[in-house]
Amino acid sequence: MSLDLAAIRAAHDRIRPHITRTPVLANARLDAACGGKIFFKCDNLQKAGAFKARGAANAVFSLSEAEALRGVATHSSGNHAAALARAAKLRGIPAHIVMPRNAARPKVRMVEAYGGRLTFCEPTQEARERTCAALLAETGANLVHPFEDERVMAGQGTAALEFLEDVPDLDAVLCPVGGGGLLAGTAVAVRSLRPAAQVIGTEPAGADDAARSFHGTARVLMTDPRTIADGLRTTIGEPNLALARRHVHDIVTVSEAAIIAAMHLLFETLKVVVEPSAAVPYAAVMEGRVATAGRRIGIILSGGNVDLDLPLPWARAHPPS
Amino acid sequence: MSLDLAAIRAAHDRIRPHITRTPVLANARLDAACGGKIFFKCDNLQKAGAFKARGAANAVFSLSEAEALRGVATHSSGNHAAALARAAKLRGIPAHIVMPRNAARPKVRMVEAYGGRLTFCEPTQEARERTCAALLAETGANLVHPFEDERVMAGQGTAALEFLEDVPDLDAVLCPVGGGGLLAGTAVAVRSLRPAAQVIGTEPAGADDAARSFHGTARVLMTDPRTIADGLRTTIGEPNLALARRHVHDIVTVSEAAIIAAMHLLFETLKVVVEPSAAVPYAAVMEGRVATAGRRIGIILSGGNVDLDLPLPWARAHPPS
Repeated sequence: MSLDLAAIRAAHDRIRPHITRTPVLANARLDAACGGKIFFKCDNLQKAGAFKARGAANAVFSLSEAEALRGVATHSSGNHAAALARAAKLRGIPAHIVMPRNAARPKVRMVEAYGGRLTFCEPTQEARERTCAALLAETGANLVHPFEDERVMAGQGTAALEFLEDVPDLDAVLCPVGGGGLLAGTAVAVRSLRPAAQVIGTEPAGADDAARSFHGTARVLMTDPRTIADGLRTTIGEPNLALARRHVHDIVTVSEAAIIAAMHLLFETLKVVVEPSAAVPYAAVMEGRVATAGRRIGIILSGGNVDLDLPLPWARAHPPS
Repeated sequence: MSLDLAAIRAAHDRIRPHITRTPVLANARLDAACGGKIFFKCDNLQKAGAFKARGAANAVFSLSEAEALRGVATHSSGNHAAALARAAKLRGIPAHIVMPRNAARPKVRMVEAYGGRLTFCEPTQEARERTCAALLAETGANLVHPFEDERVMAGQGTAALEFLEDVPDLDAVLCPVGGGGLLAGTAVAVRSLRPAAQVIGTEPAGADDAARSFHGTARVLMTDPRTIADGLRTTIGEPNLALARRHVHDIVTVSEAAIIAAMHLLFETLKVVVEPSAAVPYAAVMEGRVATAGRRIGIILSGGNVDLDLPLPWARAHPPS
């Protein structure tokens, strides 16, 4: 595993023209509530609505001309699919995307809008991998795995790179953990640039494979995730877990109620749209899972792809009278 | 009227420690839809959720020590009330706020959270002014009018100042028009710094007093506004209209349907929370009221104070099946 700061810096140079340098926001009310200072790196405002644009762009623009001609492929139910379709479109190459039949409509529409070539499959991990393998054999496309790919991890690490440029003296950096691509990139960037800062993964209690794997000895597979945070239902990848064990201070879990309350509060105070997965780190602050008093905490807001045609989750849970 | 670039620059120096330098966002999909390039100055991400934090801070921090001791007062149903309470709290002086009994709950809560001293009155312009006058007589507080005050206008102009620093080569700058404080400050800043750029006011057709006043000879009073854009129901102020006549290229109107559609699209693409008033300039783009093809258009997103406990307007208009 050669993921290091140099790889992340190279990724940043490579993708800079294709991504947004996202702003960092703060809010006095949220600071007062936790007795510390919280900075939010808003990758919910990133291209295609999520940090995934970084890793996908780095993978696509790392390909040689000859490789690129064969296109790229992946299986994903969410933001990585849209991000890969977008990056491929920017490079002018095909993107073959395998999505489960039950993928969220807005995410399917985004892939289509970026010109991704969609193949639907049954909503199981096995069907996704089998369908993608067949597609790779047929097209010769380059697989860009959503999180086990080193180019992807390096790309995701660029969010932390920018974050520490803007706010150098953080005491801790929190991010959500699904497959662990963002966690791996963030951990390597933060531990290289600011070894004193803790990197803390945050995960729904209803999909706590990464926390259990991190605190145990073997990787735990997530077979029955139960969480509103649709981006975090995957099992953490092997290389991602290995990097977490080396560089991550802790992985903590949060309740579903806290995720929804955090999402509500972030909409209300920061005035930004966050998807449930992106609210998980702040949920950890709300539930006191992370020490905040007198500390400077960085939170990466991972994405903002919410179906706004449905009632927002807190309105669903507690309909207004 | 001595509102000029020097006053706006002085305001910026005065308020800089107390406001957020808000980011500028852009979106490829919105650009493609209009054939131009649109830049959004996100003052919905401003302190207290609106550009009003700028003018209120400038007024409060312009007071001499002796004046400041007597506190400030205003009447407002919305964002100016919260912004003034916040600025007064920062300076450690009282803020007396007159609000109509029917003011939106979240806005009342914001004023309370900032320690504003609330007096409720009947929801008529006459009752507001009478109650405020009594309060001024009783307390000796300094009136900070929401838009006819020159310190307020200079403060609001700082948004355009920052905007042109970040994106110097705009062809036009669009903002919403209620009382005309933002329009006046923006017009003076833009016409001083970039005379080639047009300043265009945008207004709901259901509260078109500014457009009718601007295109006619006398100021038209808005007695029966009918628009979801609660920030734009006021009549444009006299000094604001005078400045608009001198510096503003046009004031155009938009339909209610376009305001709701624009609000929806801005949530979805920019991933930010905008209140209906803030969506009005983009609604003007959607309805073709502003030439965009091949042009660089700047839009000031004025605020993000939406009651998120209610269904969002597009969900109210078209409940999901």
